[in-house]
Amino acid sequence: MTATPTRSAPPLDFDPADPVALTQALVRCPSVTPAEAGVLALLEQVLAAEGYAVHRPVFSEPGMPDVENLYARIGSEGPVFVVAGHVDVVPVGDEAAWTRAPFAATIENGVLYGRGACDMKGGLAAMVSAAIRYRRENPEAPGSIAFLVAGDEEGPAVNGTVKLLKWAHERGERFDHCLLGEPTNPAAMSDMIKIGRRGSLTGELTVNGTQGHVGYPHLADNPIRGMVRLLAALDATPLDAGTTHFDPSNLEVTTLDVGNPATNVIPAQARAVFNIRFNDRWTPETLAAEIERRLREAAGNTVRYEIRFRPTNSVAFLTEPGPFVAMVADAVEAETGKRPALSTTGGTSDARFIKSYCPVVEYGVVGKTMHQVDECVAVSDLLALERITHRLLARYFAAQHRA
Amino acid sequence: MTATPTRSAPPLDFDPADPVALTQALVRCPSVTPAEAGVLALLEQVLAAEGYAVHRPVFSEPGMPDVENLYARIGSEGPVFVVAGHVDVVPVGDEAAWTRAPFAATIENGVLYGRGACDMKGGLAAMVSAAIRYRRENPEAPGSIAFLVAGDEEGPAVNGTVKLLKWAHERGERFDHCLLGEPTNPAAMSDMIKIGRRGSLTGELTVNGTQGHVGYPHLADNPIRGMVRLLAALDATPLDAGTTHFDPSNLEVTTLDVGNPATNVIPAQARAVFNIRFNDRWTPETLAAEIERRLREAAGNTVRYEIRFRPTNSVAFLTEPGPFVAMVADAVEAETGKRPALSTTGGTSDARFIKSYCPVVEYGVVGKTMHQVDECVAVSDLLALERITHRLLARYFAAQHRA
Repeated sequence: MTATPTRSAPPLDFDPADPVALTQALVRCPSVTPAEAGVLALLEQVLAAEGYAVHRPVFSEPGMPDVENLYARIGSEGPVFVVAGHVDVVPVGDEAAWTRAPFAATIENGVLYGRGACDMKGGLAAMVSAAIRYRRENPEAPGSIAFLVAGDEEGPAVNGTVKLLKWAHERGERFDHCLLGEPTNPAAMSDMIKIGRRGSLTGELTVNGTQGHVGYPHLADNPIRGMVRLLAALDATPLDAGTTHFDPSNLEVTTLDVGNPATNVIPAQARAVFNIRFNDRWTPETLAAEIERRLREAAGNTVRYEIRFRPTNSVAFLTEPGPFVAMVADAVEAETGKRPALSTTGGTSDARFIKSYCPVVEYGVVGKTMHQVDECVAVSDLLALERITHRLLARYFAAQHRA
Repeated sequence: MTATPTRSAPPLDFDPADPVALTQALVRCPSVTPAEAGVLALLEQVLAAEGYAVHRPVFSEPGMPDVENLYARIGSEGPVFVVAGHVDVVPVGDEAAWTRAPFAATIENGVLYGRGACDMKGGLAAMVSAAIRYRRENPEAPGSIAFLVAGDEEGPAVNGTVKLLKWAHERGERFDHCLLGEPTNPAAMSDMIKIGRRGSLTGELTVNGTQGHVGYPHLADNPIRGMVRLLAALDATPLDAGTTHFDPSNLEVTTLDVGNPATNVIPAQARAVFNIRFNDRWTPETLAAEIERRLREAAGNTVRYEIRFRPTNSVAFLTEPGPFVAMVADAVEAETGKRPALSTTGGTSDARFIKSYCPVVEYGVVGKTMHQVDECVAVSDLLALERITHRLLARYFAAQHRA
């Protein structure tokens, strides 16, 4: 790990308190994981100019590209309100299918187009703008605001948030609450705050049989028969009925392969991979034990199988609804007129790492177009998110002030 | 189709009434499907010298290699006793793994080694030798003996027995009974006569789902779940309990493939192939209808699937036990001291084509090593098969004589 020294740059030609202009500037850096492409240098310039102490730690891992990250903080006292996010984006995909250049940040009819516009440069920009406006309006505000910005959330997620959190912790940084700006809203800005995420556990199931001729099945043992039996058993009973804040845990078989081209041959082996998104009723360990129990029971003495679980750092976690969650929901409701749902649905995010350091809530723009061709964000949503974040910061530090 | 004219050849250096020497001579022709490699020329020379009228029809099919075959007959009256077989062999495979040169026909410790030694040059040679000895001993025997020898039984089986039977029929040839010399014995010459074969039906089952993210299963539809349900339904109830002369029909899923490398993606499609070996309770049509009924019932309105059956000419057939079958069993018992089982088990054979022209029974040497490295046949088994065939011919024509 090394910290990149601050580089000189030409003065900005826009006001970073404008979330639309800032989003455009970020989108124009083609920072496809793991490329920095100038995006962190720009953020550093913006934040340093507003008085933030900025660090650009680079993390390495053998066999993986180095990844640049950013940590910035203004204020030296607690409480520390952290805004987390990432500046890397997924590849453009079929560029010919885009109707606007993917890194041009074109605005048409109130919509800003570009790779990363919604996931999640738009969300990060709106929060940076809000923090700038808040601190400009309240130079003597109590507490601290920090930004924790990763460069490889869309990649292996090894040299980003995980190490950045550890790095900050080792420097003595302590966080009180975190807002992660991932695009949490399915369709409208009033839709959804995420207060937790399910965990993810992947298992590889192999059933071994005995190869033979289909004309002589008594001399063979078809592993597909055993595989069907085991998979039916895994699916027979729900893992749970859901918990207070979580949907039921869910198992999906993602692939199942034999690869036998001969229709007169009973194959020797069948392989399946399954993935479970699980709620806070389970840990990876208790869940693996339950799957093993079901397999053992279904296999009896007749199905020869092997089960292997891939290592996971993805556990289910929940930020219990309380004053902080309510504060975020209040801010959303105040700006949109509607109270957002508190959800734990969807895929995984860097929140699973942050939750070990402080309570974390996720909220951002509308995620409908993320990872797609013509990814975009509504300008009105960027402006709304800036106001919501500003309102949240004001309320958060006012509450601390009163306390 | 053209008939190859008889070619001149040096005189034989062995007596073709010796089944061991004849087997060696046949094995030394490397007639891997569809190569003739001199094997039919040799048979022609042998049979023509004994007074057989010999034909060498070549059959063609667009996109396939031409295949040479042989038809020979001695006698002009009925009844016509046909010996059927094939002279083509499967490839050597890993030649380095053979402990004897695969086309050298080496004899060691009473065992003759070589590709085709047991499947089925040994069986054919023993029957040719027996017919030669029988006719030499009984030059005025009633009826006719014919040889129907295919060149592509181990290949696509398109330009061999099927067309040879049709060709012979169109020339006015009529057959009364057939002995097919495939290696039917699992371990000893007294083991097994085959009086029928199961049919074979192959189905391709595709289940269509809706691709999606494992984190959002309600937006997707996992085809593997439907596939497991359909396959479990196909396997839940036996197709039948067997019939008088047949084992129960049996379904084996031979492959099952999805090919999805991403553990966070629910795939769009799952494909399975299954093969059914079915008894005389079914035709391919009634069996396909039953499978379709089971799939329909299991799928309900929730599983979207497609089922396609590959065209098949493989129906179940039976040569009802009666005087001819008893005559074959008697001959085996008289030579071995043990009555062979009457079986319909195992894979398919050219008997499925012959049965449309006349009753057919299969009997030959021990098949244990067929298609394997170091394929071989016991010299004592070749001699026993020659004696059994001789006994059968004598009894067959004597019975006709009495009638």
